[in-house]
Amino acid sequence: MLTVPSFSFVDRYLLQKVLDATGQMPIRVKLDNGTAESPSGCSPIATVHIHDRRALAGLVVNPEISFGDSYSEGRIEVEGNLVDFLESLYRSLINAEVNSWSAHLASVWLKLMQMNGRRGSRRNIHHHYDLTTEFYKLWLDSELVYTCAYFSSPTVSLEQAQLAKMDYVCRKLDLRPGETVVEAGCGWGALALYMAKNYGVSVKAFNISHEQIVYARRRAREEGLSDRVEFIEDDYRNISGHCDAFVSVGMLEHVGREHYKDFGRVIHNAIGATGRGLIHFIGRNHKYPLSVWVRKRIFPGAYPPTLREAAEMLEPHDFSVLDVENLRLHYAKTLEHWLERYEKSQPEVAAMFDSRFARAWRLYLAGSLVGFKVGTLQLFQMVFAGPQCPRLPWTRASLYADQPQKERRSQWTHAMS
Amino acid sequence: MLTVPSFSFVDRYLLQKVLDATGQMPIRVKLDNGTAESPSGCSPIATVHIHDRRALAGLVVNPEISFGDSYSEGRIEVEGNLVDFLESLYRSLINAEVNSWSAHLASVWLKLMQMNGRRGSRRNIHHHYDLTTEFYKLWLDSELVYTCAYFSSPTVSLEQAQLAKMDYVCRKLDLRPGETVVEAGCGWGALALYMAKNYGVSVKAFNISHEQIVYARRRAREEGLSDRVEFIEDDYRNISGHCDAFVSVGMLEHVGREHYKDFGRVIHNAIGATGRGLIHFIGRNHKYPLSVWVRKRIFPGAYPPTLREAAEMLEPHDFSVLDVENLRLHYAKTLEHWLERYEKSQPEVAAMFDSRFARAWRLYLAGSLVGFKVGTLQLFQMVFAGPQCPRLPWTRASLYADQPQKERRSQWTHAMS
Repeated sequence: MLTVPSFSFVDRYLLQKVLDATGQMPIRVKLDNGTAESPSGCSPIATVHIHDRRALAGLVVNPEISFGDSYSEGRIEVEGNLVDFLESLYRSLINAEVNSWSAHLASVWLKLMQMNGRRGSRRNIHHHYDLTTEFYKLWLDSELVYTCAYFSSPTVSLEQAQLAKMDYVCRKLDLRPGETVVEAGCGWGALALYMAKNYGVSVKAFNISHEQIVYARRRAREEGLSDRVEFIEDDYRNISGHCDAFVSVGMLEHVGREHYKDFGRVIHNAIGATGRGLIHFIGRNHKYPLSVWVRKRIFPGAYPPTLREAAEMLEPHDFSVLDVENLRLHYAKTLEHWLERYEKSQPEVAAMFDSRFARAWRLYLAGSLVGFKVGTLQLFQMVFAGPQCPRLPWTRASLYADQPQKERRSQWTHAMS
Repeated sequence: MLTVPSFSFVDRYLLQKVLDATGQMPIRVKLDNGTAESPSGCSPIATVHIHDRRALAGLVVNPEISFGDSYSEGRIEVEGNLVDFLESLYRSLINAEVNSWSAHLASVWLKLMQMNGRRGSRRNIHHHYDLTTEFYKLWLDSELVYTCAYFSSPTVSLEQAQLAKMDYVCRKLDLRPGETVVEAGCGWGALALYMAKNYGVSVKAFNISHEQIVYARRRAREEGLSDRVEFIEDDYRNISGHCDAFVSVGMLEHVGREHYKDFGRVIHNAIGATGRGLIHFIGRNHKYPLSVWVRKRIFPGAYPPTLREAAEMLEPHDFSVLDVENLRLHYAKTLEHWLERYEKSQPEVAAMFDSRFARAWRLYLAGSLVGFKVGTLQLFQMVFAGPQCPRLPWTRASLYADQPQKERRSQWTHAMS
């Protein structure tokens, strides 16, 4: 660290702590009275401008929350490419344990305050998904799909990739005309409508975000699909009745670790021993809570499970896991698109909310992109079937065949039962 | 149950117990002094001829082991199709808990006696895999692949399907010329030789079956591959050195539940944070030990894990699960082929060993076929990569593309790192 005479002893002490914590990362830190560089020997990847000593001290005491909040408030600025800076930071921290007692306390406190019981879920979901739809329209695709897309190649557009994802989900579920589907956590309804329109199924789609349900119902009416797609404003725990297939894209992250058995029971009540299911979720390679700052400011109550934890839902009901696919790189690509669109719309976001909100969401999107890029976050699609499911795919080849749906489906064969 | 006057009170009592335990299964039971039918109302699926009261009493006390042993000894015979009979039996029993204290004791006893430490593994593997190779040649494919094949369609031959399986494994691992591979549990060496010959890699292949290693080494010499395939007669726990890819097909079942962490460490030592791996194993939808009779007579120390249990190997090392595929129906098909060939060779098997052995193996093959058919057994192929693996597949489409290997491989892309 360059010793800058104009820094006070306290500044020097705090700065040294911060630079130590970021390991060998090549950064320049600017305080209002001088500049210091980490001793990595490489040219700095970015300059972090820390405007006041409270922000600097916060980085020592509770680094994640303080960085997130100070960045949002403009008391910390990153001069240079935010994604490159975060990527370098994540890679330096990837094996570091969070040793801050204050961060640990914050994590436990958030866990207690954001439990996903029925009321807690409603509050947690409201916080994120009931932000006005106009906000999400600024940076999502035209179908408003707020989950990982599927890019047949990295160059296809986001719009195409979201349609491709929905079709991929339908094919993995082998949906057939006349079948019934339950969707848990349906967002603005794009997948439910896609399934009904393109695969001829009837869908009951559940969501506790009022704003999203209202939007989805209007779309169903406008597209003449209200007779086959019912949007229900209710908790997944209240799903009842039998269906052929169960699908949930991007909801498990919000169910909460302590409710996986409930969720498993809900799925089992829906598809019994003969149905199929698909769960699409953000996960981890090993158990680790979600960023405390993201839980505090963006996604209250969220938790990305490992495959082992997700399997806890399925084992008690003897479901067979048929297929697990990791689409991590597709989520990084999806977030690249979202972030690019978001950054173009940031002035409108700031006008719609305020600049603190606009900066917080920029950090959240950039941080999520980096999480998927470096692999601290994973994206799993898991297909399963009840133990007496009468038809199972013989191979997965038909998922990748360029042929009409009918032929494609004929490649599915009746299970040898 | 038909009351047959010639049955004694004890016979009637025991028979009633046996028929009660098989639920609603339509069978006819023949004792030497009469015949009884289960009261299912359907025509019987088979006639079970029980030649003596000891066999009958055994079915009540310890049904699984007694049925297996008495069948092997010819004291119980099944008149009718053995596979159909077993399928009906498995389906009747599928939700029944084993309540026999004697079976439970036997299960615990076997677990203790067949532990998979270094010495125990050698003894357990010797019991099964060191039966003469001539025996396995009677009913396996010409490459002597003793694991689940991959049938691109149900009608392809076993020989084709075993080659297809080996190629599928190579493609899932994205092997490239010059890379190094470690194989744990290599059987008679077919996969190791296939990888070296068709994908240009160097292989170190481990096995503790002496008979198999001797055979594999001879094949390597005959095919001029000894410079690129080294067959090592040693325990997987002694694998050392670094490689690009780790593969294990059909060995995890023999590692034993208590050694998964050791196995995970072995894999981690081999591929570190940058390599890829594939584990192919017989598994379960939920925790349940392997048949006590199969453990006693056929596969000492074997245990088919659930996906959750298998994931325990991977989580501590931050491996990313990339792909899980369930090939259960392919194992049922593989076993259909094996059983058909086996039944044709049964007289030779009886001459090579004795009729008790020949009948025991027929029951084991038929029972395994039925396990995969009804779903009490699953077959998982799990692909994973270290957290810093420099290349990951963008999609799985190339696994199913009909194109030359080179082009296929170019569809793999460098991870966004």
